[in-house]
Amino acid sequence: MKLALEKGFYFPSCEIYADAPAGFWEYGPTGLKVKNKLIDLWRREIVRRDGMLEIDGSQIMSRSVFEASGHIENFTDPVIKCTECGSTFRADRLISERIGKDIPERTPNDEIDEIINSEGIRCPSCKGKFGITTRFNMMFRVEIGPSAEEAYLRPETCQTIFVDFPRVYKTMRGKLPLGIAQLGKSFRNEIAPRQSLLRLREFYQAEVEIFCNPSKLDSLPFFDELSNTTLRISTDGLSVEEVTTNEGLKGGLLPNKLVAYYLSILADFYSKTGIDMKRTRFRKLGENERAFYASIAFDFEVETSVGWLELVACNYRSDYDLRGHSTVSKQNLAVIDPSDQSKILPHVFELSMGIDRSIYAILEHSFYEDSEHDDRVVLRLKPYLAPVLVGILPLVNRNGLSEKSQIIHSELKREFDTYYDDSGSIGRRYRRLEQIGVPFAITVDKITLQDDSVTVRQRDTMQQERIKVSSLKEYLRRSLQTS
Amino acid sequence: MKLALEKGFYFPSCEIYADAPAGFWEYGPTGLKVKNKLIDLWRREIVRRDGMLEIDGSQIMSRSVFEASGHIENFTDPVIKCTECGSTFRADRLISERIGKDIPERTPNDEIDEIINSEGIRCPSCKGKFGITTRFNMMFRVEIGPSAEEAYLRPETCQTIFVDFPRVYKTMRGKLPLGIAQLGKSFRNEIAPRQSLLRLREFYQAEVEIFCNPSKLDSLPFFDELSNTTLRISTDGLSVEEVTTNEGLKGGLLPNKLVAYYLSILADFYSKTGIDMKRTRFRKLGENERAFYASIAFDFEVETSVGWLELVACNYRSDYDLRGHSTVSKQNLAVIDPSDQSKILPHVFELSMGIDRSIYAILEHSFYEDSEHDDRVVLRLKPYLAPVLVGILPLVNRNGLSEKSQIIHSELKREFDTYYDDSGSIGRRYRRLEQIGVPFAITVDKITLQDDSVTVRQRDTMQQERIKVSSLKEYLRRSLQTS
Repeated sequence: MKLALEKGFYFPSCEIYADAPAGFWEYGPTGLKVKNKLIDLWRREIVRRDGMLEIDGSQIMSRSVFEASGHIENFTDPVIKCTECGSTFRADRLISERIGKDIPERTPNDEIDEIINSEGIRCPSCKGKFGITTRFNMMFRVEIGPSAEEAYLRPETCQTIFVDFPRVYKTMRGKLPLGIAQLGKSFRNEIAPRQSLLRLREFYQAEVEIFCNPSKLDSLPFFDELSNTTLRISTDGLSVEEVTTNEGLKGGLLPNKLVAYYLSILADFYSKTGIDMKRTRFRKLGENERAFYASIAFDFEVETSVGWLELVACNYRSDYDLRGHSTVSKQNLAVIDPSDQSKILPHVFELSMGIDRSIYAILEHSFYEDSEHDDRVVLRLKPYLAPVLVGILPLVNRNGLSEKSQIIHSELKREFDTYYDDSGSIGRRYRRLEQIGVPFAITVDKITLQDDSVTVRQRDTMQQERIKVSSLKEYLRRSLQTS
Repeated sequence: MKLALEKGFYFPSCEIYADAPAGFWEYGPTGLKVKNKLIDLWRREIVRRDGMLEIDGSQIMSRSVFEASGHIENFTDPVIKCTECGSTFRADRLISERIGKDIPERTPNDEIDEIINSEGIRCPSCKGKFGITTRFNMMFRVEIGPSAEEAYLRPETCQTIFVDFPRVYKTMRGKLPLGIAQLGKSFRNEIAPRQSLLRLREFYQAEVEIFCNPSKLDSLPFFDELSNTTLRISTDGLSVEEVTTNEGLKGGLLPNKLVAYYLSILADFYSKTGIDMKRTRFRKLGENERAFYASIAFDFEVETSVGWLELVACNYRSDYDLRGHSTVSKQNLAVIDPSDQSKILPHVFELSMGIDRSIYAILEHSFYEDSEHDDRVVLRLKPYLAPVLVGILPLVNRNGLSEKSQIIHSELKREFDTYYDDSGSIGRRYRRLEQIGVPFAITVDKITLQDDSVTVRQRDTMQQERIKVSSLKEYLRRSLQTS
């Protein structure tokens, strides 16, 4: 956290102001590079790999959209307000803290009131009595134009995908199964935002909705490509079974080939982010835990210093969404499946990824204090996720070394993310680079002027090798390969 | 426009719903690729080239931010409401249409009332009388948390940059001049949004704020690199002078080296987008036209079928913003200029680019009906901006050509944007690719099976050459170079 604030990874929004609202964070120059590279990786390893179509839609959407999606009715948290000091709390959270047991956020209001009475729960601020439980809708409302038409900031990016599905399917000559992807912001008016990137009111989602023919969930053309992927599955939230995709299917841990295939794509993607896969699991959710639209649900979770953290919600939403939008818009959203010319309302399986949380987890899993070398702090980020790929350091600032270093720097900087640093001892400069995860440091020394070679130092091993300046680009390009 | 809708470039938001609000558009799969590639080009040719720092901040910001920025007071449009039917109009626009002369949007309300009376302007819908002019604030208001704290969706991305400046300057070891860049969404509650991407309520900006020492606007280290750039400048909105940057400075068309340098970077960037630079101009704005915070202003404009279109606002905002935020936040935002250790409140010059409009202009300037070849419709997009770089087409679907084509396709698809098409005659398939601007089409034929070569057809010349499959990647990579 200290590193994040001091090195430009992320920091609170509007921080110079006393009225800065909680739950809003900014990416600084270092963090933004990691974020953009993670998104590139997602595009390459999930979207392009599977031939998905990606769209980018508006964040403000009309009221009808959220009537159809169920968010106006269901996307609420239970709140209680102190009758004396007026403080407001999320009822389920406060109760969980008091009785030491999670209660579902969808527990009916009267049951919550009962628990508060029977447990004698009072306001933590003033010990006052609570009024009855009400529901607080977590969508942000906005008003459009002088006539103040009611609209909302979308609470999940996927609603755009559902509403745009008919046009995209038609104009892009779609075939089922068809993945439609979107990267963008969503907004949730959380009652109690949590620290830094973990529970934000404005956050990035990378969502994929796979539209499929529900009668063909077990005939998937590319399934074999991933059938030997390792998956770690937990059905009880405690123990984990490590199986291949094929074994998971045969043993009944996974419901069908389609779900199995996309969980495998996801696992393969995360194995390339540097997250320690031994500290991850797909947790199968019970009926009480699933979102209101999901009939099968797995959460992809990662173990961190704050416990198990959900990074991706994988939900089989069936035709819940298209049916809802069809009813409210009075449009027929059924399409032709070209494989057998049947007309169907597709079902949907989604991978709903939280980008900010993923970055948090990647940074934490990459963080390393090297006790064998002066407790140096190293972020062991993959080269293709590092904010800066290479530092360029003149050994000293005389004898023409700065000039030579500048030349090398300007040759590399349009293609790669580079950092030029000539201040302080070479050891301190190495430390600064290691802290933000720079995998390579080029040092320009006296020998460079003689034979046009530099030393390239590797962040993790600290080993150095001499490389010709003319081979640097190729060397760096190779390091960016993901497989 | 028809092409945009039919080929997945862009289309209206929430279009299946009757209550879809105007002024919101979506990027389809084809348009999104163009958008992302344009942003990559901006990063390479402006942000990286100049060594700027890029950040990514929240879209919702606290009320104080917009008190300080002046938006709560000044970011308003004059509106008039019909006393009979209740229709609301933007007063300045309605008057301009009636009297055939532009009136500034900042004309005082009583002057507007006077014009409406003296010209006898009545409601266009029902001929009713108008009430008096009022001001409509164009920011979208949102309420945060159960206590409904007042906040706003930012109307320009740069406010994030100003508010974050102190931390970014400090943690990233800043030196003046320092460019801080941001790509993101802004929101303006327009009273009358215009067609498609031209005046949106939710839109993308790519903004750069250059923080500088106002006493050093003529000492710029990299100035010479761009001093021979061609700039087309108009001071009266009618005639254009074409000069080099150096000539513009000497002749007094440009106020100082800093402004001259960044306008040159911008011109150089747009010359790489495929926009016809002969149909562009930097228009110097008069005092009445400038935004409320600008003391020098140039609009970069492009000639299109809807007239001259502003793509970038280039404003010298002086210390207006940092001073405002300093006053309201009661924080001292002055920094040390390391070059002479003086403590100053930096001035700001900005390049505020509209991404959506730029895409509109690029598409329009690339559109070409080839009267010599069956009126084929071609989008002559640069390869590095094309939604798809290469199409892969088996000449026929038998004799193993499909299988061979699929192999080539899967080798290329993770690195490049590809499109596989095996339906219809080869001529029709070429046409489909040309319409969305695909620069290359690979055809797999009988000879391919013999010597592992394919034909590569160029979109613009329609010429074909035979290339070995093993050389394809290098061939395609070379086409993506920007210079």
